[in-house]
Amino acid sequence: MEKIEHLGIAVKDLQKANEIYSKLFNQEPYKTEIVESEGVSTSFFKVGENKIELLEATNPDSAIAKFIDKKGEGIHHVAFDVEDIYAEMERLRKEGFTILNETPKKGADNKLVCFIHPKSTNGVLIELCQEIK
Amino acid sequence: MEKIEHLGIAVKDLQKANEIYSKLFNQEPYKTEIVESEGVSTSFFKVGENKIELLEATNPDSAIAKFIDKKGEGIHHVAFDVEDIYAEMERLRKEGFTILNETPKKGADNKLVCFIHPKSTNGVLIELCQEIK
Repeated sequence: MEKIEHLGIAVKDLQKANEIYSKLFNQEPYKTEIVESEGVSTSFFKVGENKIELLEATNPDSAIAKFIDKKGEGIHHVAFDVEDIYAEMERLRKEGFTILNETPKKGADNKLVCFIHPKSTNGVLIELCQEIK
Repeated sequence: MEKIEHLGIAVKDLQKANEIYSKLFNQEPYKTEIVESEGVSTSFFKVGENKIELLEATNPDSAIAKFIDKKGEGIHHVAFDVEDIYAEMERLRKEGFTILNETPKKGADNKLVCFIHPKSTNGVLIELCQEIK
């Protein structure tokens, strides 16, 4: 794994959260994106080489809505950049981690992504992502 | 803010978590450290420019013990690298954020640190840290 690609934060109101995080980072989000397949509306900030993704649910069945119902707003997942997502999924499966996707899927921000179940990783939802070239 | 300096993960059993994260990152922790003042035993992994800090409580009054009681194991805080922690604390106070420390304190890994209350930041406990030179 190369670095933290982004940190995903579940928020109730993306517009209000954008105002707060714009003050925090002293910059506006560089991108907003709706990912229909995930039921989320997102915005992205850059902090050096890392990104912060704010996520608001667009429907009550979205994983983000369920997360907020259960745990409240806060850090939802951490994503690590990988060079070869297929090889890394294979390596981690062999190590005993529970990968939530059979094959990588298309995520936000032009990435192939997969998720590792938090029960394998001390309660941390981990995303692996590889840029689509 | 320069980058994500580290991500702090609250765990119940540091030794077991070290085994899991060593498999995940395909490397051993490069450092372990007990921070008496915080009531935590910690280990650190490097992922590119970023670090992952695992934290186990060393006593039941530790913030990490309370966090796990309330929310379970998982991501506890995110720390951002800053060049001048005093200036950044001043800027953020003026922007309305609740800084939990009057002045910076000595944290793990040779840093001056302060924390921003999660109520100011959509449930995210944010640490600012500046390396002590």
